[in-house]
Amino acid sequence: MARINEHYLKLRGAYLFPEIERRVQAYVKGPPEARQRIIRCGIGDVTEPLAPAIIDAMHRAVDEMAHRETFRGYGPPTGYPFLREAIARGDFGDWGVAVSADEVFVSDGSKTDCGAILDILGEGNRLGITDPVYPVYVDSNVMAGHTGPAREDGGYEGITYLPCTAENGFVPDIPDGPLDLIYLCYPNNPTGGMITREQLGAWVDYALKHGAIIVYDAAYHAYVREAGAPRSIYEIDGARRCAMEFHSFSKNGGFTGVRCGYTVCPKELLGTRSDGEKVPLHGLWARRWSTKSNSVGYVVQRAAEAVFSESGSRQVRTLVDHYLENARLLCEGCRAIGLTAYGGVNSPYVWVACPAGLGSWEMFDRMLRQANVVATPGVGFGACGEGYIRISAFNTRENVLEVVERMKALSRQPA
Amino acid sequence: MARINEHYLKLRGAYLFPEIERRVQAYVKGPPEARQRIIRCGIGDVTEPLAPAIIDAMHRAVDEMAHRETFRGYGPPTGYPFLREAIARGDFGDWGVAVSADEVFVSDGSKTDCGAILDILGEGNRLGITDPVYPVYVDSNVMAGHTGPAREDGGYEGITYLPCTAENGFVPDIPDGPLDLIYLCYPNNPTGGMITREQLGAWVDYALKHGAIIVYDAAYHAYVREAGAPRSIYEIDGARRCAMEFHSFSKNGGFTGVRCGYTVCPKELLGTRSDGEKVPLHGLWARRWSTKSNSVGYVVQRAAEAVFSESGSRQVRTLVDHYLENARLLCEGCRAIGLTAYGGVNSPYVWVACPAGLGSWEMFDRMLRQANVVATPGVGFGACGEGYIRISAFNTRENVLEVVERMKALSRQPA
Repeated sequence: MARINEHYLKLRGAYLFPEIERRVQAYVKGPPEARQRIIRCGIGDVTEPLAPAIIDAMHRAVDEMAHRETFRGYGPPTGYPFLREAIARGDFGDWGVAVSADEVFVSDGSKTDCGAILDILGEGNRLGITDPVYPVYVDSNVMAGHTGPAREDGGYEGITYLPCTAENGFVPDIPDGPLDLIYLCYPNNPTGGMITREQLGAWVDYALKHGAIIVYDAAYHAYVREAGAPRSIYEIDGARRCAMEFHSFSKNGGFTGVRCGYTVCPKELLGTRSDGEKVPLHGLWARRWSTKSNSVGYVVQRAAEAVFSESGSRQVRTLVDHYLENARLLCEGCRAIGLTAYGGVNSPYVWVACPAGLGSWEMFDRMLRQANVVATPGVGFGACGEGYIRISAFNTRENVLEVVERMKALSRQPA
Repeated sequence: MARINEHYLKLRGAYLFPEIERRVQAYVKGPPEARQRIIRCGIGDVTEPLAPAIIDAMHRAVDEMAHRETFRGYGPPTGYPFLREAIARGDFGDWGVAVSADEVFVSDGSKTDCGAILDILGEGNRLGITDPVYPVYVDSNVMAGHTGPAREDGGYEGITYLPCTAENGFVPDIPDGPLDLIYLCYPNNPTGGMITREQLGAWVDYALKHGAIIVYDAAYHAYVREAGAPRSIYEIDGARRCAMEFHSFSKNGGFTGVRCGYTVCPKELLGTRSDGEKVPLHGLWARRWSTKSNSVGYVVQRAAEAVFSESGSRQVRTLVDHYLENARLLCEGCRAIGLTAYGGVNSPYVWVACPAGLGSWEMFDRMLRQANVVATPGVGFGACGEGYIRISAFNTRENVLEVVERMKALSRQPA
């Protein structure tokens, strides 16, 4: 009899965003005018179209696929050299960070990479995961059997949760004991918080001391605008020996519907065998991709390459500026009505403390019903997110200004 | 210290196709005119451009991504309804097979699906894998820790190999003992063999009797042209309770460089918990995709949809006809020089017995050096492939005719 992976049965309820969608759909079945009025600031999905340079690159690549002489079949399993080189230069070399093209592994996005990385890591690693956090880090570990059962408080046994709170500026304290695999994400999803070079240096020192690996999620690196704030963990000495970095074109190029991202796996990065011998992760990661994937389609890789072209990078920066200005407006709007709001700088997310002791889902429901605004309940990202909601700046300017107005009106209504 | 997945260390050498590429590159460094003369009939990569209807659909979809009103961000995690419905109708309903759209899970290709399926299956399943076979079925199980160490003969402990030989017409005999997870692929890669409805029925009966799951790889279903030969395992009564089916747009639509495929997971299909309780795989599979993927890009899904349009399906059939005629010519050419050749009907692959007791790699090297033709050594697909080479019909007509001529010349040369 074929046995299932029973670790899946430990997973609590639905994944956060399907649950939000369920509540929204249930609500819009009610008041007929509600569907039209709904403004979505929940899931971090971009709203603006692809930049012209990217569109042009895609049309050109489609045309190449129409002719035998220029048609492309299977590509290299970890991405075409043209894209890996553009990434190594545009996201690292031009910023003074040394990453070589053959350390770049192209994929269809960070969500895929989050699951895939566990393929090459063994069992028994002590997990450190921030709280609140992108749910995929947790769920993919549950599925892989790297945790115990679910607990009452929403967490899982076997994970060391690293609280990110207003008190510590949403940067977790260095733990006392040893951890083996640590997930960090800056600019942070969901809190919008940022880490300083010194704080990141302390984490790198910790990882080197304990032979730990940091999975550093830099999906929002394009939003870093403050001087001195790190855009990549590899700006820190020693990080090449303890960190993999995850990148996405979703939040800069607007690729949520195109699907492309990448990981960096430095050649110096070593994992440990049960007999204590060290093994470079680079070879394992390459083997993982060549066996389990035929990489990303040619047209998509040309689209990603265009993010780094002269016109493309200028257009993408304008797009990111647009969302950053949205974030600033949302943050200010919340503060103007007396709410405590974090983030909104170096990040497209605003992290808002719910007023008057409301819980996250209560505030979510109130915003949905009374303002027809969909936010994300902070508790969906972990126990420490309780009492917060995340408002996403991925929207049109018009909608953002409308959300600010509706929040103002909401603040005058009874709960 | 971060521990690695040590099962990766069991994997033997490089994956087959990189090893072929290594030998080809080593060879073309020698004789300067060789590079130009090389004809590749090795890896099963298509050579003809995408059909006009698919190109048109991609351009239209790219244009939609250029405007805010029609831009698409994150799609449903298991594929857009427009594509799932087109698949359910075009690959099943129109052929009298009942598969519903919500049983179709869109992915970026079968290689990904082969790895992903093991995510939801547990440990301790008794594996039945044909020999010879697409190497990914084996390697993905090794990586997941579902086998023992590598053996001298190229196989792995813990796998029950099901020989596919000329004697059994490349369809494995039903085993005496129980297996839990069985991989079958028809039209077969690499042998080009086909299974009859009766033979497939016997496997379904076996699976139902033992509560086993059949992973049925139908990547080459578009090549089935003989009346009565099954295009899908779901043509067999009871298969919905014991089989998942894997499909690809690579070999019909020519999507090797576009990346799209899908799996079918019927709602009746159950796996077993350790306490004997049954669990529908459909829910686990849906959870796997919603947690670990954001599905396939919008432009790619529109391209796949176009495979089923009136003009698209006609153009794709012409493309498949082209490769089938290539296969026929290759098969006849081999037979004309006294070689025993199988396949080439219902399949783009010709499976040729090496002459005069040559081994697969010897024949590979001889064809490479003396005819400048790249084939695939049969032993690369498993021990039972020793003494064979696979010739792929994915090529231009001109190249195929040239390969036939060169094989003729080769047959007159000393070994």
